[in-house]
Formats: sequence, structure tokens, C-alpha cells
Amino acid sequence: MKHTISVLVENHAGVLSKISGLFSRRGFNIDSLAVGVTEDAGISRMTIVVDGDDYLVEQMEKQLNKLIDVIKVKTITPGQIIARELVLVKVSSTAAQRGEIMNIAEIMGASIIDISPTTLTLQFADTAEQVDLFEKLLRQYKIREVVRTGTVALEKGVDTIDQKVRKF
Amino acid sequence: MKHTISVLVENHAGVLSKISGLFSRRGFNIDSLAVGVTEDAGISRMTIVVDGDDYLVEQMEKQLNKLIDVIKVKTITPGQIIARELVLVKVSSTAAQRGEIMNIAEIMGASIIDISPTTLTLQFADTAEQVDLFEKLLRQYKIREVVRTGTVALEKGVDTIDQKVRKF
Repeated sequence: MKHTISVLVENHAGVLSKISGLFSRRGFNIDSLAVGVTEDAGISRMTIVVDGDDYLVEQMEKQLNKLIDVIKVKTITPGQIIARELVLVKVSSTAAQRGEIMNIAEIMGASIIDISPTTLTLQFADTAEQVDLFEKLLRQYKIREVVRTGTVALEKGVDTIDQKVRKF
Repeated sequence: MKHTISVLVENHAGVLSKISGLFSRRGFNIDSLAVGVTEDAGISRMTIVVDGDDYLVEQMEKQLNKLIDVIKVKTITPGQIIARELVLVKVSSTAAQRGEIMNIAEIMGASIIDISPTTLTLQFADTAEQVDLFEKLLRQYKIREVVRTGTVALEKGVDTIDQKVRKF
């Protein structure tokens, strides 16, 4: 089962290496990882999606909490999750095909962000399932290149990873 | 100076740990990192943004190329880059403030993806500068929580990281 773990960390060189080392020593393959800044420049937030049973994820949470640079760890309950990812897709397009691709973009809520005589580049942000569908729709044209961010997630409603830690 | 390095890797446990270890041993702090699947389930694509001079980044590129799980490394030329990131922001909102926040979302091209009696959660994908502006605009309301994906990037026009490697 997929689990989404949200981790607040001190923004130091080496933190990522420690955390990814922890996962690889346990043989956990990380499905997706996103690391971005928060409003506090000294703190980064990692969103890690891993496949494993509840027991293993609980162990991983405990191990993460032992790391000195880790401020807070939270596994987001599946029913409470708002998860999104971003994809950029470069697709081959003749002049005649552009209209078709523009229609797909409009229906899905994607944007066209680059054009060349033979290609279009599109940006799309949604759930992993919608991103998969978007890629599938574009596959009938020749997909030249895809880059996905990995998942970021927050909890539904008012809850946050830790009100006490955040100083926003 | 910020450099954006795009890396295609075999999707094995431990690859991320090796790559982040390489950066931390050299004292490079990674500004942002995004790891996502490609159309080939066995291959992931990492986008790494680091701060450093040209010489150091060139050395890093060489070191990455030596890793067995690394398929291809490319530093994207700044003038040729299409870079985007995704942010989710949970902001406090009274019923009366919702209209104001909806206006900001509409003007910026963001979407509202969750609502509670006292909060709104918004999704926004754009360049890092626009994401910074978006966060700044929402700061007048109380930002409860922010999660950013880190940057993903492709090259403008028809070029891809490696036509020969991609089997799309």
C-alpha cells in the first residue's frame, strides 16, 4: 500500500542524503519524492511516497524522528489527503494537430507553455490519476519527453503538519 | 549561480541515496529536488537545482555520469529552460474573505481544491517567481501551511535530454 509521509527538515547539506540512506538501507524504494522550501528559508518540506505495509511505515516514521535535522514527521491518512503533482510533457505536433492538442489541454485544464514548428510543451497539475490520464491522451501524438514532480500533499480541512512548529 | 541538472536514473532503491550522498560529500546544498516516474516505469527523472559556479557543476556532472544507475545527465542552459513548480497553500479564510481569495486565484490562474469553514486550500503551478508572488499575495491572510514540489524543467523547443535513450 502507498503511504505519503510529510517531513519538515532543517535545510542543511546532507539531510537529504541521511533520509534517503535510511530508506535505502531498509530496502524501501521511494516512489516519489519532492523537496521544496517553506516560508521559513531554514526549513524544507519533503513529501515522500513509499510502498509498504503499515508496520514498516511506522518503523520508518520512528527512524526519521530520531534524525537530528528532522523537525516533524507525519504520515497523512489516505482519506484525509489532498495530493497533487505537476507534469511537463513535450509532444510532437504538426501544425494540423495543434488544434486537437489545444482541445485536450482545455478539457483537462492544462496550459501550453512552449511551441516550436514541430512540438508543443504542456504543463498540467492534478492528482496522479489525472496526470496518468493526461499522459495517456497525449500518447497518440509522439511524446518526446516527460518530467513529473512527484507528489506533494496536505491534509484536508484545517489540520496542519504541526501548528506549534510553523511560524507563518 | 543556480544550475538545473536533469538526470535520468534506473528506478532502484538506493539511487537517490547515492546521488544525494555525492552532493552532500562535496558540500553542495540542493536547493530543490524533484523525482518522478517517466513513461518507462524502470526509469525515474530527477531535476536538481544547485547553487554553485560553473566549474563545480561540471565536476558534479562528471561524478553523476560515473554512477552505474545514472543513464543520462544534462545541465539545462539558463536561456533554454522551461522551469515550473507546484505549490499547495492552506490559508485561513473567513466566509467574508473567500471572495477576495477567489479573485487572487482567478487572476493568478490558481485553483481552490479544498474548503473548510475557516480555511481554503489552493493549488498553483508556475515559475518559481510567480509561485513566490502567489505566496506573498496570500500572506495577508494567515498562511497555515505550504508545500512546494521543487522545480521540474525541460528545454525549450524540440531538444530532449537524450533522444537515443528515450523509448517513448
